[in-house]
Amino acid sequence: MTDVPDSQEVFEARLRAVGEAQYHDKHPFHHKLHSGDCTPDQVRAWVINRYYYQTRIPMKDAAFMSRVNDPALRRSWRSRIEDHDGSAPGEGGIARWLKLAEGVGLDPDYVASEVGILPATRFAVDAYVRFVRVEPLLPAVASSLTELFAPAIHKNRIAGLLEHYDFANSETLSYFQNRLSEAPKDVAFGLGWVMEHAVTRADQDAAVRALTFKTEVLWAQLDALWSAYVEPGRIPPGGWQPDEGLAS
Amino acid sequence: MTDVPDSQEVFEARLRAVGEAQYHDKHPFHHKLHSGDCTPDQVRAWVINRYYYQTRIPMKDAAFMSRVNDPALRRSWRSRIEDHDGSAPGEGGIARWLKLAEGVGLDPDYVASEVGILPATRFAVDAYVRFVRVEPLLPAVASSLTELFAPAIHKNRIAGLLEHYDFANSETLSYFQNRLSEAPKDVAFGLGWVMEHAVTRADQDAAVRALTFKTEVLWAQLDALWSAYVEPGRIPPGGWQPDEGLAS
Repeated sequence: MTDVPDSQEVFEARLRAVGEAQYHDKHPFHHKLHSGDCTPDQVRAWVINRYYYQTRIPMKDAAFMSRVNDPALRRSWRSRIEDHDGSAPGEGGIARWLKLAEGVGLDPDYVASEVGILPATRFAVDAYVRFVRVEPLLPAVASSLTELFAPAIHKNRIAGLLEHYDFANSETLSYFQNRLSEAPKDVAFGLGWVMEHAVTRADQDAAVRALTFKTEVLWAQLDALWSAYVEPGRIPPGGWQPDEGLAS
Repeated sequence: MTDVPDSQEVFEARLRAVGEAQYHDKHPFHHKLHSGDCTPDQVRAWVINRYYYQTRIPMKDAAFMSRVNDPALRRSWRSRIEDHDGSAPGEGGIARWLKLAEGVGLDPDYVASEVGILPATRFAVDAYVRFVRVEPLLPAVASSLTELFAPAIHKNRIAGLLEHYDFANSETLSYFQNRLSEAPKDVAFGLGWVMEHAVTRADQDAAVRALTFKTEVLWAQLDALWSAYVEPGRIPPGGWQPDEGLAS
């Protein structure tokens, strides 16, 4: 261990290396999903569980803002909540996710009710919200930097889903399409902020740990899906059963 | 004690009675301020301490949003943060409060640094933010209903300050002028939400207690000012000293 801070270039490379090593695009569930190998029920299980993550993102962003006493930083963060919630009913990322739910044959009201979320999904996502609520601002911001790696996975996902699944079209995939322009704006700000505020080696290490933690949060969600709906395919108590919540 | 809920009319009257009994417009500091009886330093002490409350309001509102999983409710709450932070540097309620700080002869950077805030002000305001962060949503919303009583005090304040103090003009008092239109919108929503969600007598009692708590938070800030800068006029450790933070 050294106390000398890394150069900006080395520090940024360390952050990016976390994604290379363990962003959830490396998880077998993603390969299965993108290659058309998921059953309709496996796609539905992914949509239901990922919905929980979607809904907690603006809560996480509000938790961050609740700890910021600088109006300028709060202003820069605000659009993240707006992107997810929109400005009217039916707008925003969460509503777009419910369009995807509809597209895969689920009742959007069932999905929005948050019934059937795997407990392991809740635990992972709630750990993320708690992290942002209690950790210092630097790791809190750094934990959002998985957005660095998101546009690639979203492009890949749009292409893979369009190619392999009947439900996929511009409406059902509009969530991912919108994130292609939203995520780069967020991550440009977040990365700049982290680079500026991670002054010491300890700060840089904390930022790398925070981003690592966040990749673990994402990975755990796909492991939970795999365990419940792929192999062994043992749905735990509380988890969605494939005959529930279907569109009538 | 009874378990029967009050009618909507009686419940609303109970809420309004809290303001009648102990909103901070009843505090002698307000009479002193509005009647022109405050020294320049007493006005400055009020501006410095009240700044801390202003800055924590959007943090409180973000803390509330961080606990709301309904995008529609978050959307309805968002404008509160926008009102305080504005959309660009120099805009919004906090920036307007700093205009007032300048007007009364303070260096706005000193005020924004949060140095010199009375510890008792911090304790009271922080208790409010914590309340909204941890209490159930119903008392959290109910605690915002002091806005019911705010337009009257703001109108009164604008008139009193304009009449009695040289610093008072449309720019320095723009914070209060803006709140005249912002507060009624917020409170119409908040009151409606509380009326709708306070179903049981226990809910109604919790809402009344929350609003009572909030009036105590406001009252404690003026007691602290009085103690430090009026009588006995004993400035506690950490409190602003009248030769500090003046505009150069």
